[in-house]
Amino acid sequence: MTIYLDNAATTFPKPESVYTTLDQTCRRLAISPGRGSYSLALEAGRLVYEVRETVAEFFNIPDPARVIFTANATEAINLGLFGLLQAGDRVVSTTMEHNAVSRPLHALASRGVEVVRVPADATGQVSASAIHEAATDGGKTARLVVLSHCSNVTGSIQPVEEIGPWCRQHGILFMVDAAQSAGLLPIDVRRMGIDLLAAAGHKGLFGPTGTGFLYLAEGLHPMPLVYGGTGGNSSSPLMPDELPERLECGTLNTPALAGLQAGIEFVRSQGLEQIFRHKNALLTQLKDGLQSMPALHLHGPDCSDLQGGVLSFTVAGHDPSEIGFLLDVEHGICIRTGLHCAPDAHRSIGTLPAGTLRVSPGAFNTAADIDALLNALDRIFCANPTVSA
Amino acid sequence: MTIYLDNAATTFPKPESVYTTLDQTCRRLAISPGRGSYSLALEAGRLVYEVRETVAEFFNIPDPARVIFTANATEAINLGLFGLLQAGDRVVSTTMEHNAVSRPLHALASRGVEVVRVPADATGQVSASAIHEAATDGGKTARLVVLSHCSNVTGSIQPVEEIGPWCRQHGILFMVDAAQSAGLLPIDVRRMGIDLLAAAGHKGLFGPTGTGFLYLAEGLHPMPLVYGGTGGNSSSPLMPDELPERLECGTLNTPALAGLQAGIEFVRSQGLEQIFRHKNALLTQLKDGLQSMPALHLHGPDCSDLQGGVLSFTVAGHDPSEIGFLLDVEHGICIRTGLHCAPDAHRSIGTLPAGTLRVSPGAFNTAADIDALLNALDRIFCANPTVSA
Repeated sequence: MTIYLDNAATTFPKPESVYTTLDQTCRRLAISPGRGSYSLALEAGRLVYEVRETVAEFFNIPDPARVIFTANATEAINLGLFGLLQAGDRVVSTTMEHNAVSRPLHALASRGVEVVRVPADATGQVSASAIHEAATDGGKTARLVVLSHCSNVTGSIQPVEEIGPWCRQHGILFMVDAAQSAGLLPIDVRRMGIDLLAAAGHKGLFGPTGTGFLYLAEGLHPMPLVYGGTGGNSSSPLMPDELPERLECGTLNTPALAGLQAGIEFVRSQGLEQIFRHKNALLTQLKDGLQSMPALHLHGPDCSDLQGGVLSFTVAGHDPSEIGFLLDVEHGICIRTGLHCAPDAHRSIGTLPAGTLRVSPGAFNTAADIDALLNALDRIFCANPTVSA
Repeated sequence: MTIYLDNAATTFPKPESVYTTLDQTCRRLAISPGRGSYSLALEAGRLVYEVRETVAEFFNIPDPARVIFTANATEAINLGLFGLLQAGDRVVSTTMEHNAVSRPLHALASRGVEVVRVPADATGQVSASAIHEAATDGGKTARLVVLSHCSNVTGSIQPVEEIGPWCRQHGILFMVDAAQSAGLLPIDVRRMGIDLLAAAGHKGLFGPTGTGFLYLAEGLHPMPLVYGGTGGNSSSPLMPDELPERLECGTLNTPALAGLQAGIEFVRSQGLEQIFRHKNALLTQLKDGLQSMPALHLHGPDCSDLQGGVLSFTVAGHDPSEIGFLLDVEHGICIRTGLHCAPDAHRSIGTLPAGTLRVSPGAFNTAADIDALLNALDRIFCANPTVSA
């Protein structure tokens, strides 16, 4: 029996409805949408549009046509950043970002974009006032603020409600990487003043891998990341101006998008509050159980209300990767160890170079899974009081 | 009963093995490969590597690590073109290209890349000597030649064997858009001197939508199209140098890639020769049946050995889209009408602005399907001798 606790990477398993929707759509309607004008192609086009509507409704996005489907969150983030930022622009971010944000920013810096990274505190928290300050520092107003809603290393939930509306007042674009928060925390792009929202479909929204999206507020007109056929305006050498076509080309993944819709319906049927409470209960159980462990260090927020779906910890004198290996091979428990593709975050919380042990339970994990993890850790530490120095 | 004859857009249906592999892999192993170090993640990583090996073997690619997975052929083509071409470079292409090639080239032209488009003849054929000439014109050697192996409008098969080895002799990179040929025509990147091979996974290779790849020859080191986490070298702000990681980031679509492997295995079990023969027989049956139609114009090569999987035709005095509509609603037959995202090709063969009727049978179509299409066309033309002027 395997216990999977790496849901921050991708949720697994998915709800049965996601599997069956994906399979049935493959068998019935794996057609290129919006290309042919025959009924099946139109039906595929309608289905894709319905998924856009479902995404839009879920995040209170006013116009479904401004939901751009991508292969994953990384592509969505890149599309927003490379599509909008130009040499001379200032962009404000944080030291808690995943490489999906920090690497494109590093590449943009080499092209003349000024990148300011606001430091987080040792719990992984970023203050809104520090963002405000950096975004208007020296009289130059930033073009864009971008940050992750919820850290994939510490689970820290950042104060997007205090940043977005402020950005709007100051004419600064606000982009949120919701890879870890979509499907876990309520996100309302209007209330939160979010101009660009990037998320994966296959994490908290329970869609299949191969899905992600970028929402773009009215008036934003980024350069495409990829150029090609869109099914419309075929005779022009230019990408069309209209969304979503301008930013989506090549054959879309209709069945996977249908699966994403089923995933979002699952989240709705559970309710975000219930999902958050479930994860909270499991992480609290884990924290409580870990307290007795000698030399333990919990990383991240003190208050569980400020914590998303992951818990990171380290044990002095023990290499995370070695503990992770023993959990896997001796106990069949899958957790994540190391840097989680976010080295800056580890610099912020002091866990470089070895990183942390990260546990991210999902909707289908139970208290018994956390008990099994705690028991396994007990046995590992009893048997290996000094796994490594 | 629907008869689907738009397999050039995406093959449908897929072999049963593709559906079951996709479903089973979703249920068993929809894990982020190469991220976690636990057994399931390693197994997903191994599976993805096996798919790379399958692709490499199928196209005689020496090193599977140089097969980069993408969401579709369009992304693969963009990755190659934007990753390698710089201002001042000359690139030679043709007038038969899909927008997946011609639109990125147009965007590159606005950034200072010199783009030369070699004209095709009225059958859609491009001559190797014209390519050679354009690639060395005025004493300046092109950096890259890029063309589609097989036109998605006329089916014209271009003489890649006469272009690739010549390019190699002259130090010119050779890129092939194999969207229409992969799984239909034998492709051997070594024998054909192909440096970059881009293809969809969901067309002739029978994989699920959401799959595609770019092969890059040894020594090529393009700039990434997308920057983010790769699972390795996490602490660097730069994308790693190694392939495939340098050019693949964000969560890969493991189940869809497993489905692609099943699709390639299906192609192997049929054999390319048999697949080509089957399409040839159906297209010959269609051509023969169409001969009796008044005012018919067949577009594309005269010789069926020079023709890939599509047949385009027009009927004087009749708008293709109107005929396509009647075929669909009155007869349940799905064919494609219009420009097929390749306006330049229609300029070459003289079918702008209305485009053509395009029929592309797949492995599961039968002679009865073509008979049904011919009967339907007969009835449409009897009932509507002048559908439009």
